[in-house]
Amino acid sequence: MTSYREFYRDRPVLITGGLGFIGSNLAHQLVTLGARVLIVDSLIPAYGGNLFNIHGIENRVRVNVADIRQQTTMNYLVQGQDVIFNLAGQVSHIDSMEEPYTDLEINCRSQLTLLEACRHNNPAVKVVFAGTRQIYGRPDSLPVTESHLVRPTDVNGINKAAGENYHLVYNNVFGVRASSLRLTNVYGPRQLLKHSRQGFIAWFIRLVLEDKEVQIFGDGTQLRDFVYVDDAVDAFLRAGASDASNGEAFNVGGLEPIRHRELVELMIRTAGSGRFRCTPWPPDKKAIDIGDFYADSSKIGATLGWKPTTLLADGLKRTFDFYRAHFAHYVPATGEQVASL
Amino acid sequence: MTSYREFYRDRPVLITGGLGFIGSNLAHQLVTLGARVLIVDSLIPAYGGNLFNIHGIENRVRVNVADIRQQTTMNYLVQGQDVIFNLAGQVSHIDSMEEPYTDLEINCRSQLTLLEACRHNNPAVKVVFAGTRQIYGRPDSLPVTESHLVRPTDVNGINKAAGENYHLVYNNVFGVRASSLRLTNVYGPRQLLKHSRQGFIAWFIRLVLEDKEVQIFGDGTQLRDFVYVDDAVDAFLRAGASDASNGEAFNVGGLEPIRHRELVELMIRTAGSGRFRCTPWPPDKKAIDIGDFYADSSKIGATLGWKPTTLLADGLKRTFDFYRAHFAHYVPATGEQVASL
Repeated sequence: MTSYREFYRDRPVLITGGLGFIGSNLAHQLVTLGARVLIVDSLIPAYGGNLFNIHGIENRVRVNVADIRQQTTMNYLVQGQDVIFNLAGQVSHIDSMEEPYTDLEINCRSQLTLLEACRHNNPAVKVVFAGTRQIYGRPDSLPVTESHLVRPTDVNGINKAAGENYHLVYNNVFGVRASSLRLTNVYGPRQLLKHSRQGFIAWFIRLVLEDKEVQIFGDGTQLRDFVYVDDAVDAFLRAGASDASNGEAFNVGGLEPIRHRELVELMIRTAGSGRFRCTPWPPDKKAIDIGDFYADSSKIGATLGWKPTTLLADGLKRTFDFYRAHFAHYVPATGEQVASL
Repeated sequence: MTSYREFYRDRPVLITGGLGFIGSNLAHQLVTLGARVLIVDSLIPAYGGNLFNIHGIENRVRVNVADIRQQTTMNYLVQGQDVIFNLAGQVSHIDSMEEPYTDLEINCRSQLTLLEACRHNNPAVKVVFAGTRQIYGRPDSLPVTESHLVRPTDVNGINKAAGENYHLVYNNVFGVRASSLRLTNVYGPRQLLKHSRQGFIAWFIRLVLEDKEVQIFGDGTQLRDFVYVDDAVDAFLRAGASDASNGEAFNVGGLEPIRHRELVELMIRTAGSGRFRCTPWPPDKKAIDIGDFYADSSKIGATLGWKPTTLLADGLKRTFDFYRAHFAHYVPATGEQVASL
């Protein structure tokens, strides 16, 4: 066991969005490492929070249903924590264009709420923010490093960039230690499958599992990189345990980029079900698409020793196995109709 | 008269923050060019709005007191406008660190309010946003071009960056034509002199006019560039009249950089009053200072034909002449005590 993992033994940690996809996988790891985990989640129905996500650890964590938009609630909950993993967010790009104020409230204003809570009630805490590669927009060159311009293509990206910057400014000006992980496409167990508004990978996984047709927009040649959730969790654990991350933003990308079409073919092969066809881009999605993207993660490698380790084929197998075992907890029996992505 | 100036004859234009420093100078120019000017200003007492700023054109513009945070008001006011010059903002960096939510509401959320108003009520309008060089933060290299990273050092810079990005995304996704001017330090007539919370240059001007001592933080060797307000106004006029600006952000910088100490010496020489001394940095201001900064404005030169034309000595002379003639309208008789910057 390396030192950054020992760091968490008996340590009080808070996870915002802790019933969501990455937050709950992080909670599972932290429980294994002996941390005292407080989960805060709003359980807004359309979002990713799912009580089943803590199945197996429900008696070893505390769950506090709350909205990070509530200043007084956050003022109380941050107290006594050593590390805050700040993963609560609105993650739908399409929703951000239809309801920009909601996205602003959650992804932008609420980050100030959390940081103000820390500044006034727990200034010695360490905060790790779940950022996103979406803030880069359409890349000028590949792979994308942290010195690439931040040029978001949608409201969600703008607000996530602001949320990240608040963390870095509170680190630099107020000494609330904070860092940000700019996650590329994360996949794995405990992701939301019940609708298609939170990105394509989980939706593809659901369609393949249901032996349905996946629609790939365009010719399917766009390149993306994918991170298995356990690898993403490892990046959070390393960032939370090290002051070398303070005031920094890090790319957290995948092992190797893959084309959408090859990804879907690999999914179908791994699952033994599903099929696909290519279809023209819907205009609203094309307008905020970013083309090819893959990240250079060498900065977090050099600073925190992180690198992705899970091959896509292995990660997808574990993902399908998980959802096959627990499908009803992720797709309600009444079942939404299969929508195109 | 060049075509971008003829463009404004009889044209309905709205200026948010139109009683403020740059907005009112823009209003004077637009009236001269024959535009039909609607000024919207909140007249929040601590901000830059000042009814005297439209002295001489008060019967040739319409003034509507309103807060751009009000969605229904903005929905109405944007209708029928051909161009919106969007200059309303909270401009104090220090205030943004003490009251981050206010800065967020005005500089971030209100920009969505204006853009949503346009998207739903006047999608054919053209919007020019008053951005700021503050979003770059501490420069990696000089002069700073638009391809420099956006890395704000304070909450104001973060929110101004988000506000700018909303404009560019609404241009790209919703077709609400918009562009942003990243202004460096603008100076000239009609700037707020009544307190020192909106940046140093107007405050220095006041102290010199009052024959008082200017305090320069540090050794006064930091480089900055300065734009005379008429030059800044010319950039707005060009951007508003040209579709070549759509979806773009442009630096609007000064003729040549100058050190703080030399600037103050030039002020004292030009005004024939005042004195200065160097003093250590207060920690709260040092924490958000950005060191040397000057902008490369070649992009707006190539795209819109803009360049600064006013020498600092000439601009300062005109500025001092203006305030000498109208001092009581900018510094209340009860007079705040001279505070250090």
